[in-house]
Amino acid sequence: MNQLEVCLTPALLPMYNVESSIVVIIDIFRATSSICYGIENGAEAIIPVSQVEECAAYRDKGLNYLLAAERNGEVVIGFDFGNSPFAYTAEKVKDKTVVLTTTNGTHALHLSLKAKKIVVGSFLNLSALSEWLKVQNDDILLVCAGWKNKFNLEDTVFAGAVISKIKSSKHKLDDSAIAAEDLYELAKPDLAAYLSKTSHSERLKKLGIEKDIAFCLNVDITTSIPVLKGDRLVKMTC
Amino acid sequence: MNQLEVCLTPALLPMYNVESSIVVIIDIFRATSSICYGIENGAEAIIPVSQVEECAAYRDKGLNYLLAAERNGEVVIGFDFGNSPFAYTAEKVKDKTVVLTTTNGTHALHLSLKAKKIVVGSFLNLSALSEWLKVQNDDILLVCAGWKNKFNLEDTVFAGAVISKIKSSKHKLDDSAIAAEDLYELAKPDLAAYLSKTSHSERLKKLGIEKDIAFCLNVDITTSIPVLKGDRLVKMTC
Repeated sequence: MNQLEVCLTPALLPMYNVESSIVVIIDIFRATSSICYGIENGAEAIIPVSQVEECAAYRDKGLNYLLAAERNGEVVIGFDFGNSPFAYTAEKVKDKTVVLTTTNGTHALHLSLKAKKIVVGSFLNLSALSEWLKVQNDDILLVCAGWKNKFNLEDTVFAGAVISKIKSSKHKLDDSAIAAEDLYELAKPDLAAYLSKTSHSERLKKLGIEKDIAFCLNVDITTSIPVLKGDRLVKMTC
Repeated sequence: MNQLEVCLTPALLPMYNVESSIVVIIDIFRATSSICYGIENGAEAIIPVSQVEECAAYRDKGLNYLLAAERNGEVVIGFDFGNSPFAYTAEKVKDKTVVLTTTNGTHALHLSLKAKKIVVGSFLNLSALSEWLKVQNDDILLVCAGWKNKFNLEDTVFAGAVISKIKSSKHKLDDSAIAAEDLYELAKPDLAAYLSKTSHSERLKKLGIEKDIAFCLNVDITTSIPVLKGDRLVKMTC
């Protein structure tokens, strides 16, 4: 029997056996959606970093690096683009390495480094990710990036979507997995409407990025699974 | 506008403004249910402590103290009773002070000591508690004791019940409050059936205390609100 659990915020990671698990990093609005889209569109790698300065340090490493940095919804001056998934088109990222500075998503990823394997999930690659998870024989820990270590609804609902697709009699669900799946079932008929009541969605609306939000709720428009190799997220090759 | 928020486990308390809030401590299976029942039944006070040794230290203070200590579902040898709500009848606790050792509930309470006020909630006093909360003009933080700092479903569903009863246009809900309310709406038609799938419920069943669980899901059989005064929980007098 394998554990199938949901860590609702990075602050709760110490309560889980990260070492024995495949970890799925989830930051729906917008980091992991953009990462899935970028890897699908041929980015050679995406390197998530915490600080704008770390990101800027890649500037001298050559033209093959694109630097993505955003603070408060605006591209930081001097950077190539921000966190909008629309910046991660084939035209822009094919064969490039994107250095992406995010806060919540990177935080979750860095706290999970001891995991057996770290992959990235979003509604964009829901089915592809779930098909792969289904045939693994390890514990699975879905890590919601949340917002500043607090619970958020969109990451939890996505975790629930994964659970609903992969759970079987070989899995033992924890209470947060049960709750996440139930919330997903409520949200499923109209994800956008359900998530429009969240705090994060309100915040993003104020930033004028409703188009990004809508895009991040597109289900199964990609099939790549980003996986961490060293400090780089690359396309999983089975 | 007041905040109406749910802290899903004590581990997330640092993310909340405890100081400006009325805190409701929630530990449905079984600490806060037993406390509500004991206060209703005339206990002079209930003193929650973390360690069995702290509890034992009250033994020399006189016959008016009842000592409640339980580990792994068994009354600790030499103590008057354990955590079962059935021990908190008027016959046993009237005019007595009960020193209760719990783990999750006490942990949540001790981390919340800076709150404006600390009260105790359970399904037993749901409506009485909600009526009182409704007319307060402070931020409200519902603190789920959880299980060893992890999320649990029964505490969250109860938080959702409170939210469903008190929320109004004067409240700003966080995402965990929204999720808790939705989970409560799912659970409401048959609380026992819904919560039977939780991990904690499984654990308690193994301990042979299904009767306790069923009792803790009785809605509105008490009207007292336990409130913390110093280190003692006493009946609120308005």
